[in-house]
Amino acid sequence: MAQVSNKKVILKDYVSGFPKESDMNIVDSTITLKIPEGSNDVVLLKNLYLSCDPYMRTLMSDPENSINPRAYTPKSPIAGYGVSKVLESTHKDYKEGELVWGLTNWEEYSLIHAAQIHFKIEHTDVPLSYYTGILGMPGMTAYSGFFEVGSPKKGENVFVSAASGAVGQLVGQFAKLHGCYVVGSAGSKEKVDLLKNKFGYDEAINYKEEQDLDAALKRYFPDGIDIYFENVGGKTLDAVLLNMKIHGRIPVCGMISQYNLTQHEGVTNLAHLIYKRIRMQGFVVVDYYHLYAKFLEFVLPHIREGKVVYVEDIAEGLEKGPAALVGIFKGQNVGKQVLVVARE
Amino acid sequence: MAQVSNKKVILKDYVSGFPKESDMNIVDSTITLKIPEGSNDVVLLKNLYLSCDPYMRTLMSDPENSINPRAYTPKSPIAGYGVSKVLESTHKDYKEGELVWGLTNWEEYSLIHAAQIHFKIEHTDVPLSYYTGILGMPGMTAYSGFFEVGSPKKGENVFVSAASGAVGQLVGQFAKLHGCYVVGSAGSKEKVDLLKNKFGYDEAINYKEEQDLDAALKRYFPDGIDIYFENVGGKTLDAVLLNMKIHGRIPVCGMISQYNLTQHEGVTNLAHLIYKRIRMQGFVVVDYYHLYAKFLEFVLPHIREGKVVYVEDIAEGLEKGPAALVGIFKGQNVGKQVLVVARE
Repeated sequence: MAQVSNKKVILKDYVSGFPKESDMNIVDSTITLKIPEGSNDVVLLKNLYLSCDPYMRTLMSDPENSINPRAYTPKSPIAGYGVSKVLESTHKDYKEGELVWGLTNWEEYSLIHAAQIHFKIEHTDVPLSYYTGILGMPGMTAYSGFFEVGSPKKGENVFVSAASGAVGQLVGQFAKLHGCYVVGSAGSKEKVDLLKNKFGYDEAINYKEEQDLDAALKRYFPDGIDIYFENVGGKTLDAVLLNMKIHGRIPVCGMISQYNLTQHEGVTNLAHLIYKRIRMQGFVVVDYYHLYAKFLEFVLPHIREGKVVYVEDIAEGLEKGPAALVGIFKGQNVGKQVLVVARE
Repeated sequence: MAQVSNKKVILKDYVSGFPKESDMNIVDSTITLKIPEGSNDVVLLKNLYLSCDPYMRTLMSDPENSINPRAYTPKSPIAGYGVSKVLESTHKDYKEGELVWGLTNWEEYSLIHAAQIHFKIEHTDVPLSYYTGILGMPGMTAYSGFFEVGSPKKGENVFVSAASGAVGQLVGQFAKLHGCYVVGSAGSKEKVDLLKNKFGYDEAINYKEEQDLDAALKRYFPDGIDIYFENVGGKTLDAVLLNMKIHGRIPVCGMISQYNLTQHEGVTNLAHLIYKRIRMQGFVVVDYYHLYAKFLEFVLPHIREGKVVYVEDIAEGLEKGPAALVGIFKGQNVGKQVLVVARE
């Protein structure tokens, strides 16, 4: 049986501090495009689109010193969400030629256990890459975090950090659709323009240009914040705690500002949780995938009618993977960072 | 009409940092024991037992720099929960000779609006002072915080800080009644002995003798903590976050370690909220007083049968008020700090 080339992105070793491109290697390898005899419930995939997500940083740390109990294995390919084509399958649910999204390895072809596939892709009138974003994990994260954890009511005041990112851009649009007043923060003029002109945020803050985030929040939320969709942690959270309304909610989706610090910043205003009766709640999207069909019913018509848009930042080729992944921790991406391995 | 003496405890000015006895004055005054003509819906009270509670510190701060939007008025008597006898009333619900508990001033006699009374005292086969503690605000705080906010399940692992205090001693006992494994922390050998031998805690930690609270928690909770009943904040919370179980809950009742600091300690481990899906929720007892009748039905039989006990630390005389109140921030009280103004 003929072998084909199978490039991989390898994690050299556990990372501490900011990840660098040189923490990863591109390795040439080969694979036989045939499932070995006797392998049950496995699927051979051709990977098309790979997703660059902040949580992947937590998998690069030594699990002894990580908020994530799981970790990548040094000297092995990193892994993450991706859109792939089934080349062969020994699992009854999947057939050759089908498109799927789920957890796959950063390589051209992957032989994975079928349980790593999350969903079959049924709707292909939208860009396939959307299944790494608005129609995949980030979309479900925004949907479950905002609606299920955030319990929003029409007319409430919503603040979103990392507001133009893979998740944030959707939280803002979902909140507007729900009749909320929404302000987002991001780290460049270009992103702030996107927030206001593309995603429909009522107001936008360039946090890098605000000397005093507390004062900026008081300017945009004179009556306070009902829901803070937390993506960043640290100083932003501290300023937000001073500006929350009574019975406010803080769905904690991520704390990207902290992932690369060996000593996390201290949050000093937690005592405000008490009198304000604030509910601050961490969540992980995997607990909500049972809502995926309901989510598609909600979001697909909005996409088709142009009422919800999605901005992607596309990197071409697996070799660009390390730079694309490292870039999201520097805020280099504008919108959802996608890595194209192959287009079909 | 004859006037009688009416001593008061006056707050001199807003306090910053640790409160001192000298932040308060005992002032001699007089009062006519007769409601002025034309005063509707007011009640003239003889104050019997006054409650010393940590939240009172938050009312001593300038509200500009406080977690509490309310504050005492400098040069006026401080106020708090108390048990009082009705001397006269122009409100239909209250009559001379009745006993009540609610918010009253730190003075011998108070003329207050009837809305400040929380409940009439119907059961007097238990010590009257209990209505400042187990049968009053702290009891309702423990009950609502543990059962309503904490959502405990039988067999879960519960950690309580300030565990021998007015609220903590009850949370521990309620958790044991509910079939939980319960560990408490307190700041002296005497308190630790109380936790184990009087309140039935499974284990107890003297936090002042632990070099490494994280290690101590790992020793007592090898499988992690399901519910942390938060009374102290700061370093304790940081160590707890490292030891919470998935889907853990942190009812935030108070953060006494922070109330006297002009710069609060930073909590660095909040990113653990995410993967552990922790719900951290501030609450205030006033939101739960509608459950008071249900609470009495639950707790009175336990008190009468000796299945729930309550330890009080009694200071005698209004003059002892400032020292008693300041003492709770130094951990001087053993059990609920009560101030007796008069016994009937």
